[in-house]
Amino acid sequence: MKLYDCQMAPNPRRARIFIAEKGLDVPRQEVNIMEGENLGEDYLRVNRWGMLPSLELDDGTVIAEAPCIFGYIEALHPVPNLLGNDPKESAMIQAWERFAEMSGMQSIGEFFRNQTPALKDRAVPGYKGVPLIPELVERAKKRAAYFYDQIEKRLGESEYLGSGRFTAADITALCAIDFGNAVGLGIPEGNENTRRWYKAVSERPSAAA
Amino acid sequence: MKLYDCQMAPNPRRARIFIAEKGLDVPRQEVNIMEGENLGEDYLRVNRWGMLPSLELDDGTVIAEAPCIFGYIEALHPVPNLLGNDPKESAMIQAWERFAEMSGMQSIGEFFRNQTPALKDRAVPGYKGVPLIPELVERAKKRAAYFYDQIEKRLGESEYLGSGRFTAADITALCAIDFGNAVGLGIPEGNENTRRWYKAVSERPSAAA
Repeated sequence: MKLYDCQMAPNPRRARIFIAEKGLDVPRQEVNIMEGENLGEDYLRVNRWGMLPSLELDDGTVIAEAPCIFGYIEALHPVPNLLGNDPKESAMIQAWERFAEMSGMQSIGEFFRNQTPALKDRAVPGYKGVPLIPELVERAKKRAAYFYDQIEKRLGESEYLGSGRFTAADITALCAIDFGNAVGLGIPEGNENTRRWYKAVSERPSAAA
Repeated sequence: MKLYDCQMAPNPRRARIFIAEKGLDVPRQEVNIMEGENLGEDYLRVNRWGMLPSLELDDGTVIAEAPCIFGYIEALHPVPNLLGNDPKESAMIQAWERFAEMSGMQSIGEFFRNQTPALKDRAVPGYKGVPLIPELVERAKKRAAYFYDQIEKRLGESEYLGSGRFTAADITALCAIDFGNAVGLGIPEGNENTRRWYKAVSERPSAAA
């Protein structure tokens, strides 16, 4: 196996942390998103969508997208369990993992991309020709505020986001929030449940991945 | 089980088709999105994100989000298989199902919402207070064009979208495209692979769901 990675990007980090939690050692190849290497011919032959991360298997099959990589690795390496021990728990973890992505990661990405001159023709990940829309920066702030409000409530009810224990939902939320920290959309003041959780998940060795 | 549904909305239809393909009969409760019933107190007690569909289990647990409902139902009713027979096939189906949602359903939804006066304070699904951004209508057209281009290529290589047979990826793509048909972003002229596939999936009895 080989992981196509980008050290500074939040979505490849989801795969890196997942792999670290499983205790696996997967070789990595760096692809520079900011320089557009992901949209070059070589990488588009690996992943037609130009997205990271991708996991290349030994038979040449490429698995695109962090949640799909999660599912594949969990099936092959079920311990420790990160995606649920039964259908109901799996559905809850998947729903919160998805929420962390669609509401957290996507809004923070929108906030970042639509005000970043280096991405001026690349407002949508994966291809060129999409101009920035500065008004989206404000919308993204509202969406991120909603994300933070929702996880604050949830983490007042549950020690971790998707279940009572650390799972893939926590991985994606951590990656979204650290991305937020990097671009100026971190955990709001007073969100103490989220801060308690953030400290716990950040102290896990996998968070360094 | 009970499905919280909205007959005219594309995401609940994903769940309805999945349930029909499994040969199950699940009672439904209609929630009117256009009138904002999904953002009312009663429904927010069912699904905190105000999103549809939701699947309520007999013990009161609520499973939110179409892909999570897919996973739950597949675990309980594995035949016919719609999410993959092995980890590799599952990952490919999940990646294309996800692409149909993130690139197809999301862009068509963005196109529709940002020019629909009835949704003027609800440009993002699930909550109020987010104004429309008319510039997003143009961006959404580009994103939808990319979606159609990618599935056209894929359907030139593979009879169905996620695998060589009908799966959940086809369900989400069909729902996205029929949503596109309804709002003026249908299959582009000349996309013959997509038209061949669209005819086959639309003729399945489940498409009436």
